[in-house]
Amino acid sequence: MILPTFEDVRAAAARIAPYAAVTPVMRSDRLDALVGAAVHFKCENLQRGGAFKFRGATNAVWSLDDATAARGVVTHSSGNHGNALALAARSRGIPAHVVVPEGAVQAKVDAIVAAGAHIHRCEPTQAAREAAAAAVQKQTGADLVHPYADARVMAGQGTLVPELLRQAPGINTILFPIGGGGLASGCSIAAHGVEPSIRLFGAEPEGADDAFRSLRDGKRVGPFVANTICDGLRTLIGEPNFAVLQQHSVTALPVSDEETVAAMKLLWTELKLVIEPSSATVLAALLRYAPQFAGRTVGVVLTGGNVDLDALPW
Amino acid sequence: MILPTFEDVRAAAARIAPYAAVTPVMRSDRLDALVGAAVHFKCENLQRGGAFKFRGATNAVWSLDDATAARGVVTHSSGNHGNALALAARSRGIPAHVVVPEGAVQAKVDAIVAAGAHIHRCEPTQAAREAAAAAVQKQTGADLVHPYADARVMAGQGTLVPELLRQAPGINTILFPIGGGGLASGCSIAAHGVEPSIRLFGAEPEGADDAFRSLRDGKRVGPFVANTICDGLRTLIGEPNFAVLQQHSVTALPVSDEETVAAMKLLWTELKLVIEPSSATVLAALLRYAPQFAGRTVGVVLTGGNVDLDALPW
Repeated sequence: MILPTFEDVRAAAARIAPYAAVTPVMRSDRLDALVGAAVHFKCENLQRGGAFKFRGATNAVWSLDDATAARGVVTHSSGNHGNALALAARSRGIPAHVVVPEGAVQAKVDAIVAAGAHIHRCEPTQAAREAAAAAVQKQTGADLVHPYADARVMAGQGTLVPELLRQAPGINTILFPIGGGGLASGCSIAAHGVEPSIRLFGAEPEGADDAFRSLRDGKRVGPFVANTICDGLRTLIGEPNFAVLQQHSVTALPVSDEETVAAMKLLWTELKLVIEPSSATVLAALLRYAPQFAGRTVGVVLTGGNVDLDALPW
Repeated sequence: MILPTFEDVRAAAARIAPYAAVTPVMRSDRLDALVGAAVHFKCENLQRGGAFKFRGATNAVWSLDDATAARGVVTHSSGNHGNALALAARSRGIPAHVVVPEGAVQAKVDAIVAAGAHIHRCEPTQAAREAAAAAVQKQTGADLVHPYADARVMAGQGTLVPELLRQAPGINTILFPIGGGGLASGCSIAAHGVEPSIRLFGAEPEGADDAFRSLRDGKRVGPFVANTICDGLRTLIGEPNFAVLQQHSVTALPVSDEETVAAMKLLWTELKLVIEPSSATVLAALLRYAPQFAGRTVGVVLTGGNVDLDALPW
């Protein structure tokens, strides 16, 4: 796979501009004081579809030529990417197929259905997800838009960084959650495209710390069984995504689910924003590794706000 | 009491500008479709202190001459106004005393303490609240800043309306919750100061529908025992506040707690905002009385976001 460049991020920004929201950046005096840094929260929970995923999905959908687009798009997703692809496909008037593993958050599945996608259920394993998506692809001719190991998706996710740097000049540190690595890799390319001295950090649940172990060992680890409430961060980091994180010297910061839940409540209380557990890992990391951020101007990505309000983790 | 004028609202806007946030206005395609109107949500949950109350309290505190201010301010409040007055007093470096009735939401009491106010506990009745505040006033010489029956407070709350009308031109209908009536009266004066043809509506819990009954009967009802989860809307509407609502032909719309809880979840899900039950009454009213709003351009006030996350009403 050819990795995306900063030029691809810029092209993606222009491509998605008619559809994506310019999300606000929020601050909190109390959180700044707790962390000991100037923290700027990029509110992708307020993005269309309630998550940053809309950026990458929209870039992928609008990158297709008309003949390919007409056959539709397919993906596998535990939630936010599937919803984003469904919305993006609708913006172009083409079919979307989403393979959803059993155990996905109900609120996210409901949103995918509401966005008009065709749902295909499968077992909650990486192999089952990929097999099911391949079957749909074969049957329909739909274009596969992988949730993270896709250059168009990576470039699309990266578009939030130039936007953030325009909104909050002076940011010298960026922190994002790491799941499959689509966001992490796109943001890394974009950040160093704008300013090569920006320091990059990724927050990761201890129960899915594959990026941390992979970066530590200099080699991508194999499949593992995730154990975390962060439903968006359970996947193994993608091969191309891992390569980008290595190239850009991203530091992975593991946090416990307990720290994440406490951070989630703190964010809800201080920012009055509904964010999902995966999003809260960034504040958990800021607090646990505060010395690494002391005195810096930090941009952090609040990735999404699609929570099952009837099953909050406290 | 001399009622505030639109000029007072304008003066208040200038007075509080250095301290208060210009809160964002949010929209949702799905909520617009459900209501059948173009709905603009004024997010006062993102105001300093997490509620619109900061506007009125700040206007009151900064209206005082230096000698009076030095003796401090006092109020009684179940939460948001107390917190707001504490923050406003801190912005001027003067003492704040807050009489808090037993049974107030713990998150709100914690916030008042964190803002540096002196707390005085009392029984949860209107008479006990007023007596305790009078005692503090006598002892300290502090200036009483009543939570709603105060012209400075009313004018301060009203400042959100010109702000909203600048942010969302074309609004011809405004809907706010009615509790003591400080917000409702201030917004009514401000709205008709800008544009006399704006239609005004107030949402009220059925278990505290004193404004509805008072407006219907043309006479302010007497004390009553509130029965609602909307902790910010349990008080009897103030005498001057009721007078303003009558003058400005405000229509009160009662909603059940069940409708309010459903609307609260819908707002959290669609807007990704943490708002408190009192704030959700407005969406409950939009949905229950949808024909009154059909096709109109509506500004609604999301009043606050100070919720006890460990005691959500669902």
